[in-house]
Amino acid sequence: MKTKRFALTPGEPAGIGPDLCLLLASQRQPHPLIAITSHDLLLERAVLLGVAVSLLPVSPDNWPDQPAPAGSLYVWDTPLNAQVIAGTLDKANAAFVLQTLTRAALGCVDGHFAGMITAPVHKGIINEAGIPFSGHTEFLADLTHTDQVVMMLATRGLRVALVTTHLPLRQVSDAITPERLMRVTRILHADLQQKFGIPQPRILVCGLNPHAGEGGHLGHEEIDIIEPTLERLRSEGMDLHGPLPADTLFTPKYLEHCDAVLAMYHDQGLPVLKYKGFGAAVNITLGLPIVRTSVDHGTALDLAGSGKIDTGSLQVALETAYQMAETRI
Amino acid sequence: MKTKRFALTPGEPAGIGPDLCLLLASQRQPHPLIAITSHDLLLERAVLLGVAVSLLPVSPDNWPDQPAPAGSLYVWDTPLNAQVIAGTLDKANAAFVLQTLTRAALGCVDGHFAGMITAPVHKGIINEAGIPFSGHTEFLADLTHTDQVVMMLATRGLRVALVTTHLPLRQVSDAITPERLMRVTRILHADLQQKFGIPQPRILVCGLNPHAGEGGHLGHEEIDIIEPTLERLRSEGMDLHGPLPADTLFTPKYLEHCDAVLAMYHDQGLPVLKYKGFGAAVNITLGLPIVRTSVDHGTALDLAGSGKIDTGSLQVALETAYQMAETRI
Repeated sequence: MKTKRFALTPGEPAGIGPDLCLLLASQRQPHPLIAITSHDLLLERAVLLGVAVSLLPVSPDNWPDQPAPAGSLYVWDTPLNAQVIAGTLDKANAAFVLQTLTRAALGCVDGHFAGMITAPVHKGIINEAGIPFSGHTEFLADLTHTDQVVMMLATRGLRVALVTTHLPLRQVSDAITPERLMRVTRILHADLQQKFGIPQPRILVCGLNPHAGEGGHLGHEEIDIIEPTLERLRSEGMDLHGPLPADTLFTPKYLEHCDAVLAMYHDQGLPVLKYKGFGAAVNITLGLPIVRTSVDHGTALDLAGSGKIDTGSLQVALETAYQMAETRI
Repeated sequence: MKTKRFALTPGEPAGIGPDLCLLLASQRQPHPLIAITSHDLLLERAVLLGVAVSLLPVSPDNWPDQPAPAGSLYVWDTPLNAQVIAGTLDKANAAFVLQTLTRAALGCVDGHFAGMITAPVHKGIINEAGIPFSGHTEFLADLTHTDQVVMMLATRGLRVALVTTHLPLRQVSDAITPERLMRVTRILHADLQQKFGIPQPRILVCGLNPHAGEGGHLGHEEIDIIEPTLERLRSEGMDLHGPLPADTLFTPKYLEHCDAVLAMYHDQGLPVLKYKGFGAAVNITLGLPIVRTSVDHGTALDLAGSGKIDTGSLQVALETAYQMAETRI
């Protein structure tokens, strides 16, 4: 069997991403895992944390075939532009952050990596550096020439995908078009089949309005847009249920028998996912030609270098990427 | 100590409301609890369910001073307009349903009852009968000449109040005005003090937009409306936190130290509440001059007469009403 290597990007160097990579290195991974970041940064952060980790340099000329032993970490050295002070953002390193993501993503496209796992970046500082950037997901979509991606968060027992993501609430209703709903649902359905190995995924779809519009009394998008679109997709063979009221859908009666929930917008689907999966949720980008998972938390600048962090979400992100890469057809 | 009597309205007679009242009667309540409905309806439903319940007639001339013994139920007989078939709606009984609510609410206003607990009504059939009706809450607000009420759902360990309730999603952003936010927050604060006995309630407030607007990148209502309004209310002495992102607020770190969450709209706050409190959540109307609680589920027409129902939510609704009536200052 071909060796499956994975890329790990620590993201914002002043945040907890480097710490997470170092803490993770205490355990042996089932596959070679390669941190794409600055060797010096990791060394300095290891001293700050007081952890002993052997950094093993690797590069495209020199990929490892075996997982690194416990207590060590493969590093594809990627130089910083400016020295990092833990907890202090510096726009001089914005280009460095994007360089690490580019190496990981193109490495996936070129077959060097079976998937990439990302720790958090800081959008604000990248924009302050004069580089337009609206997030990992959009950056990776551009880099891989992907028109439409779908954000899905998952924790044990629940997956929630979103039709719209980082939109002001007042723009959400107009963004729920038949075209978008169709594209997103097809991607969700296809990726559950191809990357999660579910032959006939059962998907529960939320309404847009409270009580899913209550027969038109509380909004018409369910009748005008969502129902006819779901009907059309069902005729293609998809197992779709809804539109259902979001406040009754997230109960055991429904969730026990579904593979994913499709929510119409961010705050309809994610509060319950993060409540259920606190500290152990993973963010998955569907629709990309590569496997990409991410932690579900932010850069936590105030905790960088403190050691007071939890690798739970990163571990779930790793496990999920491994599973997806194994399952992928 | 003065006897505290409570009114229980079974709501839609073809739904599970009558069943809930009958099943509940197997246990003795700590206060006299009076079902306001048709004596004949309860008798017929008891036969259908195969339960033995003694129905004890009471009326304003003849209030009980002691709780009914286990296995019996006080009934203030209120005649139907048409015979009921379990599971089948009939608009002929719409006026009957409103009559039971009116008796309960005016009985609270007049001091006959210390509070009222409601089982679900069916809005559609009341409207079909030609009576404009948008829900219990609005009906009770009208009846008690209350300008603004606040819907709060609660379960053990979590209370969620809503700034807007049954509005189409596209109307939500414009409905978040400083005036409404101020009125709702003041009612929430005052009722947590007066009806729940919390001297200085700690309230977490959600943003409107994803990530609470992320500093204006994902919407401006937080900066333009929510933050200045909360600041003004803090200057009145309220302990308000936020606006916080809804998908991080509903995690133990925040929830462990709060008395209530104020969500901006229905599907932002209720999915997590109902997920957490499944089968044991209660709907509370704040701002009324009376104590009113309700079950959090619907009429479940398909289960009427089946016996396959759970009284969990009704029991929490009763307990909450009792506590509120004891605490009320």
